[in-house]
Amino acid sequence: MTHSTRFSRLVALQSKLIFGGLIASLTATYTFAQSHDNHSNSAPFAPVIATEYLPKNIIYLIGDGMGPAYTTAYRYYADNPQTKSVEKTIFDQLLVGMSSTYPDDDTYVTDSAAAATALATSYKSYNGAIAVDHQHGALPTIFEIAKAQGKNTAIIVTSQINHATPASFLAHNESRRNYDQIADSYLSNLVHKRPVADLMLGGGTQYFVRADRDLTIEFQEFGYQYADQLTELNSIDSLPALGLFAPKGLPAAIESNDPLRLTTMTAKALELLSQQDAPFIAMVEASQIDWCGHSNDIACAMTEMHDFAKTLALAKRYVDSHPDTLLIATADHSTGGLTLGRDGTYQWQGQLLHQVHSLPRSIAKLIMETPNVLNDLNAFSAFLRPHISIDIEDRKLDGLRKKLNSRLAQHKAEQIITDDLKQAIDKLTYTGWTTGGHDAIDVPVYAYGKGALYFRGHKDNTEIAATLIQMVQDERYRQTPTQ
Amino acid sequence: MTHSTRFSRLVALQSKLIFGGLIASLTATYTFAQSHDNHSNSAPFAPVIATEYLPKNIIYLIGDGMGPAYTTAYRYYADNPQTKSVEKTIFDQLLVGMSSTYPDDDTYVTDSAAAATALATSYKSYNGAIAVDHQHGALPTIFEIAKAQGKNTAIIVTSQINHATPASFLAHNESRRNYDQIADSYLSNLVHKRPVADLMLGGGTQYFVRADRDLTIEFQEFGYQYADQLTELNSIDSLPALGLFAPKGLPAAIESNDPLRLTTMTAKALELLSQQDAPFIAMVEASQIDWCGHSNDIACAMTEMHDFAKTLALAKRYVDSHPDTLLIATADHSTGGLTLGRDGTYQWQGQLLHQVHSLPRSIAKLIMETPNVLNDLNAFSAFLRPHISIDIEDRKLDGLRKKLNSRLAQHKAEQIITDDLKQAIDKLTYTGWTTGGHDAIDVPVYAYGKGALYFRGHKDNTEIAATLIQMVQDERYRQTPTQ
Repeated sequence: MTHSTRFSRLVALQSKLIFGGLIASLTATYTFAQSHDNHSNSAPFAPVIATEYLPKNIIYLIGDGMGPAYTTAYRYYADNPQTKSVEKTIFDQLLVGMSSTYPDDDTYVTDSAAAATALATSYKSYNGAIAVDHQHGALPTIFEIAKAQGKNTAIIVTSQINHATPASFLAHNESRRNYDQIADSYLSNLVHKRPVADLMLGGGTQYFVRADRDLTIEFQEFGYQYADQLTELNSIDSLPALGLFAPKGLPAAIESNDPLRLTTMTAKALELLSQQDAPFIAMVEASQIDWCGHSNDIACAMTEMHDFAKTLALAKRYVDSHPDTLLIATADHSTGGLTLGRDGTYQWQGQLLHQVHSLPRSIAKLIMETPNVLNDLNAFSAFLRPHISIDIEDRKLDGLRKKLNSRLAQHKAEQIITDDLKQAIDKLTYTGWTTGGHDAIDVPVYAYGKGALYFRGHKDNTEIAATLIQMVQDERYRQTPTQ
Repeated sequence: MTHSTRFSRLVALQSKLIFGGLIASLTATYTFAQSHDNHSNSAPFAPVIATEYLPKNIIYLIGDGMGPAYTTAYRYYADNPQTKSVEKTIFDQLLVGMSSTYPDDDTYVTDSAAAATALATSYKSYNGAIAVDHQHGALPTIFEIAKAQGKNTAIIVTSQINHATPASFLAHNESRRNYDQIADSYLSNLVHKRPVADLMLGGGTQYFVRADRDLTIEFQEFGYQYADQLTELNSIDSLPALGLFAPKGLPAAIESNDPLRLTTMTAKALELLSQQDAPFIAMVEASQIDWCGHSNDIACAMTEMHDFAKTLALAKRYVDSHPDTLLIATADHSTGGLTLGRDGTYQWQGQLLHQVHSLPRSIAKLIMETPNVLNDLNAFSAFLRPHISIDIEDRKLDGLRKKLNSRLAQHKAEQIITDDLKQAIDKLTYTGWTTGGHDAIDVPVYAYGKGALYFRGHKDNTEIAATLIQMVQDERYRQTPTQ
């Protein structure tokens, strides 16, 4: 695709926005990018979609931070110890290729905002950008294009819904850190006089129910049903709807009442979207794989991966019963420099992670509250077992106890104890990490259903988006807006 | 494929060996595996190959240790700094999927022998196994099956030719460490009275020219041409032939007179194989990517990757002009826990590695020989520049000098200085490692040409081999043995 083609896409979208009388509704904080000569990256090539491969609906799943080490680890974590063979996972069943994730600078390591901007708009930008280019000009997102075509849109995430990834589908902002602004723009960035998302499920009441403004009430005035408890999810019975189930992100899977909460929300979303005649695009993000990666917490990561695997399996079943639907899944980048092997030993013992039941940071918090559990081996063993039930020989366990005990008087003891516990789990399982940030390693790409063949092989993240945008803006499934 | 199908394959091969009157030539150190009930892994499913997708020739390339971090790193290392865009590599052009590599035990981390056994026979075994099962029974290799079908065979490697990967295609041994035995079996493991490989190019004179036996003379008595210098490669003008160009492995690419020596050897091999009417299978291994990984040496790894990339490009051009040929490439496993990012910084600066011109261990050796280069900053700077020409600020460079200087009196100073230099390069480039051994992470799979479509998606390493064996043993390209 050339610059002029990109310009055509912008003009086409803008025409639709103007047609809908809505240019005025674009907030003043950005303008659509129109000057491309000083822009370093052009939109990538996207194939012409043959009618027999044009999906009506798209389920777009993103495992935040899910590099190839995570999907490999999950296979061995999920391996059934009762069988001699290693079972293939849902990831193995759906793999079609890999994706590069570098941002538009000279670092080669992207953040989640630049990556999501690429995956939502087909344009690379700078780290921190929410669907804007280097000049802060808005880049049209696949959700805006879908809405302009009269399609239904949904985001389902385990982070706050105004976090970098979902924000890059629904808003435009020069910085991912402007959480309140981004939340506000979910009500002001309109297409055909409607918010960009017909359904939003995730966390974020802290940003939507504020002293200055209660956006949940404003959404209800727009006709949205609203639920503020995951247990009340079934009170939502039609679109449009908003569900905010935590102040920021949802509880971590490993400590959640519903460890498959992404699967639960996605099932509800597909049920609601299926009630409508209009085609849909749903973006489903396993947001917290990345958070576990940042904290180099492998047990946390595997439980988030399990929720994502079940969500993928659910989406695959949906495609099996709705063959006009495309499932596309990838990661925005890889996090933590996770590897499966350390210190020269040829092993990775991820199976042990089923015996970790709490986040190390929660265990550390409890230790700080009741430090006497470190007094002797028996007390420590009894304390630890509900949280970590891995068989550890007494000598090693007592070594860990003494180490933790010696931390109590230190500055930032809770953080140090958290790190000690994570490192103990890493050593038991032979897990390695090299950074608390992201790494540059290519991520896997999964596709299934109608149009899946267009995602085979190596694709840059912008190519994935460009192909999806081709599909979404295709006139063959255009709906007359109900507005 | 069931156990009984596997048994049929063995019987079919044995029938051919018997037909050739050669069972007696099998060495006494192994017997073909016939008892499968106590064997934990059955051969994987392999598709029936449609005639239009049945390749006549197969070029089977293995990047030893080349996990996804290596192919990603190579893209950014090879990125043309004169252009704004990041160029796709030959790896990107050919990617079709990923492969799992776990061995047949409970470690999930394979060594090169078990991995090569899987890639050569379609059966998993224990770490250290050279094409034998747990009971040390021989597993028929794709090269033996090809020879039984009258096809030509070639191995081209940068290790010694009796190293684990090539050995698993040509021999059977209970341990990869039995280098002399393995070399001997290259002359005793016969199919139709001929050695299993018609062409062998690589290193290994130390094992083939010994006090007790000169195998190079015995190969010449078998009609093999022989060259012992890479510069004499062109003296070989027909098959069969043997070229051994170093006592063990060839010199590292970064310090070689011919940094593209794998490409050079592969070009010669394809020329020789093309002279024959018979179909061929060539196994080409970039053996030393793994060695760089074991020593956690990223500059070493990138120069080996460059040789492999050029070899892949050459193989692709061969397929372009010989469309009856299949190119298949993968890695046996990932090495070193390599990641591209460290210590929380969002960068990977692989471009700097073009300014590393020697192996850190060679630089350390020179320092030990002339320690006065550490006397002052000017001397150190002048000494270092021909080896590492990265611009390093004086303060940092002097810090490195002082650190190295303090090592001189230490035990194993040369190794410690080597490690210091590698860590300095890692910090400059933001490269991370977690082990001196292997890791469990899935590896990329590349395919191109006739039959490439059978390798799409996730494949276990045994599935890759099973499909290739289906192709090689297919009667449609069977040749009457010339013997």
